[in-house]
Amino acid sequence: VLLGIGDDAAVWQASRSRRSVITTDALVDGVHFRTAQMSAAQIGHRAMAANLSDIAAMGARPVLATVALGIAADTSEEWIRELYGAMAALLRRFGASIAGGDLVRSPALTLSITVVGDVSQSRLKTRAGGRAGDVLAVTGKLGASRAGLALLDAPLALDPQLAAAARAAFATPEPRVREGCWLGASVAVRAMMDCSDGVSTDVARLAAASDCGAVIERVPVAPAAAAVADAAGDDPLDYALSGGEDFELLVAVAPRAFPRLQAAFARRFGRPLERLGALSAAPGIVLATDGKTPSALAPGGWDHVRGAVSRRA
Amino acid sequence: VLLGIGDDAAVWQASRSRRSVITTDALVDGVHFRTAQMSAAQIGHRAMAANLSDIAAMGARPVLATVALGIAADTSEEWIRELYGAMAALLRRFGASIAGGDLVRSPALTLSITVVGDVSQSRLKTRAGGRAGDVLAVTGKLGASRAGLALLDAPLALDPQLAAAARAAFATPEPRVREGCWLGASVAVRAMMDCSDGVSTDVARLAAASDCGAVIERVPVAPAAAAVADAAGDDPLDYALSGGEDFELLVAVAPRAFPRLQAAFARRFGRPLERLGALSAAPGIVLATDGKTPSALAPGGWDHVRGAVSRRA
Repeated sequence: VLLGIGDDAAVWQASRSRRSVITTDALVDGVHFRTAQMSAAQIGHRAMAANLSDIAAMGARPVLATVALGIAADTSEEWIRELYGAMAALLRRFGASIAGGDLVRSPALTLSITVVGDVSQSRLKTRAGGRAGDVLAVTGKLGASRAGLALLDAPLALDPQLAAAARAAFATPEPRVREGCWLGASVAVRAMMDCSDGVSTDVARLAAASDCGAVIERVPVAPAAAAVADAAGDDPLDYALSGGEDFELLVAVAPRAFPRLQAAFARRFGRPLERLGALSAAPGIVLATDGKTPSALAPGGWDHVRGAVSRRA
Repeated sequence: VLLGIGDDAAVWQASRSRRSVITTDALVDGVHFRTAQMSAAQIGHRAMAANLSDIAAMGARPVLATVALGIAADTSEEWIRELYGAMAALLRRFGASIAGGDLVRSPALTLSITVVGDVSQSRLKTRAGGRAGDVLAVTGKLGASRAGLALLDAPLALDPQLAAAARAAFATPEPRVREGCWLGASVAVRAMMDCSDGVSTDVARLAAASDCGAVIERVPVAPAAAAVADAAGDDPLDYALSGGEDFELLVAVAPRAFPRLQAAFARRFGRPLERLGALSAAPGIVLATDGKTPSALAPGGWDHVRGAVSRRA
């Protein structure tokens, strides 16, 4: 960033020969976050992580962000500083910064973030490009964010480490920026997106953009999700398939290249690239996990089939 | 824009050898616009014009915008379409488009716009760079937007053409994108910004960024502002100096080059580049119009001295 806050606009030099990418999210208190139950630092981290996850999903690295904040009458200056501090700290870890923004009065606390990134043309990934037979995989286990949300609503008797893992997954999720750049660099990765709305919905979107269907053969449930769901009397599969906001990356990978990519991923990041299933020539999304009767997932996702799971804080 | 709405992020190719610029504005119903008194098309046009004005103030041309919209429970789909339509139409006139965004539920209607533009390094203008002796000028007469706001609150007996001009200046202001690019191309223009908060405040900001003071010798009052102020019993100078949101560009121009620039501007745009005064070595902003005793304008602007004028709808 060559010129930041204080002029009419911020200025930066986009890399020559690279593509620029941009994403925007709007968040509202009581709809997307809860000032009553979360600290300003958690709200800032989580909101910025969601945007960084979208940048990562393109194979891009973040360059800068702008932040438009609508503050309520009772918002303190300390709260605002803590919010910006957490957003700036997360950006800094990936070499990016807040370049500008706006601060206004609002009847409700609202937060709108825009992140700009860049990526070389050869590494840019979209949701399209997957082919029937491609392996579907995610960069981590699923459902912990939904479990953390459940713990916000009702404290449960639970292993403290698993409870802490669930709370952290919800409040301070880790955007997979390094993983996205690394996966973007592989020609075997044919399509990529982030899992923000629940992997069943997200698989349907990637499959549709790639003119395919998909079979989900394996659901990697996070241990924290399994523990919380058990304690709450919920189905852990619900958390993993439709909880959403795990911010793992979903990829479609050329099948012959998958074993080597999976091994290299594990060496590089110290955890497995989790196999989910495969893209199929037949349209529609089928859930066919071990020992269960295969069942169709409705377009739009698991939540439309099973109902109850709320996907937002 | 190479890839727009529908993936995790929009993609574009920033021009090689050009700088990228970005600006963000947040607007809230009842604070920055009024759904009760303005159409969706007017709200969309005005909000986008404010952002385009910031891009123009850098000497840049707009490339793309993202729009985050928080809709209230009673916002209709037709209203939303009209809002986006007006924003897209204004962008299209300058070769730009909406590349992405977000749509969420909100207790109050909120609108957050980010615009990205680009400019060659040699044409980039900032608020800094002005020197003592530089001529201060604006791209049009001032105060008509404030006059239009007055007509929203109270219908006045008035020449219908002047009333229409005031209403249009408020509801559908014209961002000076072409003027900004043209002025950016002149080496005689040493500093530039847009007049969004009232020219007295904006002159103080440009002067401070340029390590100067300023003398305002002449205030070009728009005929519609004079007529409405007269009818309302207000001071037309108030409207012109502190009304704000006229979205004219304010420039500091090398004094010897000013006459030729002014003549060329009039030939190119069919209206005068309006001389306001000059930057001074002495700090502070002095108002020294014909036949009046020179008076200091407080830093922060005319409104702090004279009080009453509300600068926002």
